[in-house]
Amino acid sequence: MPAKKKPFILITNDDSISAGGIKALVEAMKPLGDILVVAPDKPQSGMGHAITIHDPLRLKPSNEFPGIEAYTCSGTPVDCVKLAIYEIIKDRPTLLVSGINHGSNAATNVLYSGTMSAAVEGAIENIPSIGFSLLDHAADADFEAAAHYARIIAQGVLDNGLQPGVCLNVNIPKATKKEIKGLKICRQGKAFWEDSFDKRKDPFGGEYYWLTGAFERTDKGEDTDLWALENNYVSIVPTHFDMTAHHLISTMNEWDLKV
Amino acid sequence: MPAKKKPFILITNDDSISAGGIKALVEAMKPLGDILVVAPDKPQSGMGHAITIHDPLRLKPSNEFPGIEAYTCSGTPVDCVKLAIYEIIKDRPTLLVSGINHGSNAATNVLYSGTMSAAVEGAIENIPSIGFSLLDHAADADFEAAAHYARIIAQGVLDNGLQPGVCLNVNIPKATKKEIKGLKICRQGKAFWEDSFDKRKDPFGGEYYWLTGAFERTDKGEDTDLWALENNYVSIVPTHFDMTAHHLISTMNEWDLKV
Repeated sequence: MPAKKKPFILITNDDSISAGGIKALVEAMKPLGDILVVAPDKPQSGMGHAITIHDPLRLKPSNEFPGIEAYTCSGTPVDCVKLAIYEIIKDRPTLLVSGINHGSNAATNVLYSGTMSAAVEGAIENIPSIGFSLLDHAADADFEAAAHYARIIAQGVLDNGLQPGVCLNVNIPKATKKEIKGLKICRQGKAFWEDSFDKRKDPFGGEYYWLTGAFERTDKGEDTDLWALENNYVSIVPTHFDMTAHHLISTMNEWDLKV
Repeated sequence: MPAKKKPFILITNDDSISAGGIKALVEAMKPLGDILVVAPDKPQSGMGHAITIHDPLRLKPSNEFPGIEAYTCSGTPVDCVKLAIYEIIKDRPTLLVSGINHGSNAATNVLYSGTMSAAVEGAIENIPSIGFSLLDHAADADFEAAAHYARIIAQGVLDNGLQPGVCLNVNIPKATKKEIKGLKICRQGKAFWEDSFDKRKDPFGGEYYWLTGAFERTDKGEDTDLWALENNYVSIVPTHFDMTAHHLISTMNEWDLKV
């Protein structure tokens, strides 16, 4: 058997290159292959699948991870993926991992998440991609269990491959390795943000708002990522970028539109 | 039969409140109901499902559309929807329409599009929602045919309703009303951006990049939005926010992960 080529792993996130979560992810991936880090130079949480088209992008070498090639990018997580593939390596990595995010990206949060949008961009580019998120927003969150599972799941993807166009949305409960009961393959739970706006006045009398909100779960299904996480399982949702509601195509063909 | 309540229609976009496309959409919706416009105060193309959490949001009354209640928002299209629902009307509108975008949001562009993300946010909030896009980037694009079809499709949604959680991604070819052959209900085509970065030096010697690219269609299916548009049909893709690759859940349950 010929020797297998060492995997080449692209790492990004949305909490910025100096976040604790990406440090934990770099350490977790070291035994699995060669690493390139391209991450935002500032927090980019909630940026979804945004790309930067009205401003130029800056890319700077970083010494954040001794012995590992790393860059900061002035743009979004999706910009980081595009710059890595089309400008830095001019090739596809073996694997793309994003995170470990400080905070949940379960359920509909997948849409708002920069961490997951980087993984979805990887899927569009036919790269096996995984987004990891820990259910703890704290800057000093404990990533030990999350990093443990990140390595296992990344190795699983390297061993089994992923269908082109699919990435994984992995969320890890805020719990110790001992408390976590295992892994569950889930569907994306249904939920929404019951938003509220904190209205204030600036020192000059102008009104402004802070977006706040409470996450409202409407989906009681025990096959959801929300259920798995509440029950101390790591949730894995196979995620794709085809947003077609296929089951409605035939229904809509029955509409009588007066053109 | 009791008199039907007049529909209340929320209008937004991503090209900003002063774009030609939103003017055309406001005119097209006038005969259908009462209108509220909440749109970005500057172009927000490519913002995807981004929300503003690191900066405060500003909301200002606008006189852009005489006789119609309108506001500009300093944030993204999704911020506009959230502010409209949770701060301005404190209720759900009968219908949410977004656009008419200057440029295509067919195929995978749905992910990058602020126009479509506003409609997807509407779907998350259980509001019947539609994003409209014309395949013409020009600031002075001719929106006549697009506005004609926007009115027909909006009326169709008011008459037939939409399943909760589903919105429509409507794209209109760059063609006259006479040239357009009709409507097709489609699935989202598969395509990706073959990106390239235009590398430049600023006056101070610093390097920067502009993101550019060519749209590469890999999907030859005649049931796609891409095929419909190339053949001068208006494409309608029923779109939902469940990104689960359901068909892979059983496959992944066969993986032997070494926890």
